[in-house]
Amino acid sequence: MVGLKVFGQPTSTDVARVLTCLFEKNLDFQLVRTDTFKGDHKVPEFLRLQDPSGQVTFKDGKQTYVDSREICRLICSKYGDMGNKELFGTGALERASIEQWLQAEAMNFDPLSSELVFHLAFAKPLGIMPDQAKIERNAKKLSVVLDIYERRLAENAYLAGDEFTLADLSHLPNSHYLITKSERGHKLFASRKNVQRWWRDISARSSWKQVVEMQNEYHSLE
Amino acid sequence: MVGLKVFGQPTSTDVARVLTCLFEKNLDFQLVRTDTFKGDHKVPEFLRLQDPSGQVTFKDGKQTYVDSREICRLICSKYGDMGNKELFGTGALERASIEQWLQAEAMNFDPLSSELVFHLAFAKPLGIMPDQAKIERNAKKLSVVLDIYERRLAENAYLAGDEFTLADLSHLPNSHYLITKSERGHKLFASRKNVQRWWRDISARSSWKQVVEMQNEYHSLE
Repeated sequence: MVGLKVFGQPTSTDVARVLTCLFEKNLDFQLVRTDTFKGDHKVPEFLRLQDPSGQVTFKDGKQTYVDSREICRLICSKYGDMGNKELFGTGALERASIEQWLQAEAMNFDPLSSELVFHLAFAKPLGIMPDQAKIERNAKKLSVVLDIYERRLAENAYLAGDEFTLADLSHLPNSHYLITKSERGHKLFASRKNVQRWWRDISARSSWKQVVEMQNEYHSLE
Repeated sequence: MVGLKVFGQPTSTDVARVLTCLFEKNLDFQLVRTDTFKGDHKVPEFLRLQDPSGQVTFKDGKQTYVDSREICRLICSKYGDMGNKELFGTGALERASIEQWLQAEAMNFDPLSSELVFHLAFAKPLGIMPDQAKIERNAKKLSVVLDIYERRLAENAYLAGDEFTLADLSHLPNSHYLITKSERGHKLFASRKNVQRWWRDISARSSWKQVVEMQNEYHSLE
């Protein structure tokens, strides 16, 4: 159980994903963060969200991993007996369903929500003009994705079934920025009854609340 | 100017001393911190104040240093032209006076104030019974030290003369805990007119205020 290390900033969505998983699994670990100071000014954290150092590195003993979803899978597989045992399913069918929604998050939800939240919330403080055309295009595509989620969540409490799993967990970091940092993003969720109920449920988990607290330890973005 | 790295927690008094010096010298650097999580509980920062990981490590290129006052001297000597140029004096006489008070801090003020603040503020949250005899003994000795400071500061704005120097800077981390975390420590300073005036002056410097802000990013001790 010794030797788990996460390198990165909790404000990075990839780091936040891995931290939430570690808290769910109740594992001991060390978080190593590097802050850059230019003279007496801290380089703002939101700059890091866009650059490679916003990425996550995970070390388990001598092994090193850099993909946040792969790291979550690895943690769940290797430490199956620890903490939340349902997180990556307990049977082949459950695992397949979790994988399906985990991949939907990685391939559809993540790119759309990342670009949307950048132009809605992070562009202006960085002195970049938000791209209105991109916002419209992504909001439209994300609406289609969320409509599918809405139908799924009308039938099930969570994306992969009756239990909170990695599939839900993986949506937390981007959804959080979208909902808390933009009115438009907030509406995309709030206007869908079941998506909204799901979001309230998963974002109230103590694992995620602890990550949000760690993100807020940093200076606010504005 | 590249390659300055500080390893440690800003809540450590040794780390705080080095950070204040770097901010005064307006140098670019990286701060690397490691937080330890036991399951979903962060190991409280005040535990670190008492253990070796509460210490500071400083790297300048390939050179490594671990004594906070030595690191401050080194930064001032090597980067004399940067930021606050008066910090370590500009002549041999000034330097000698700074050294005298820097050593008084290291040999008298630091051990007395460290032990006092531990028993007044940190012992109880750690579940350790404060040692009342030690408190009395250290408060008495520290009173004698502060009486000397009071006389010195009646003649000079700062310990080593008319300018804020490393000698004053080095007192900031311990004084801060003593004054802000205990009524008794607060009185030791407030009851001495010139010490109080000096403390108000040095603790209002932007370099130090930034370090306090970094310390407060962590969860509060209680």
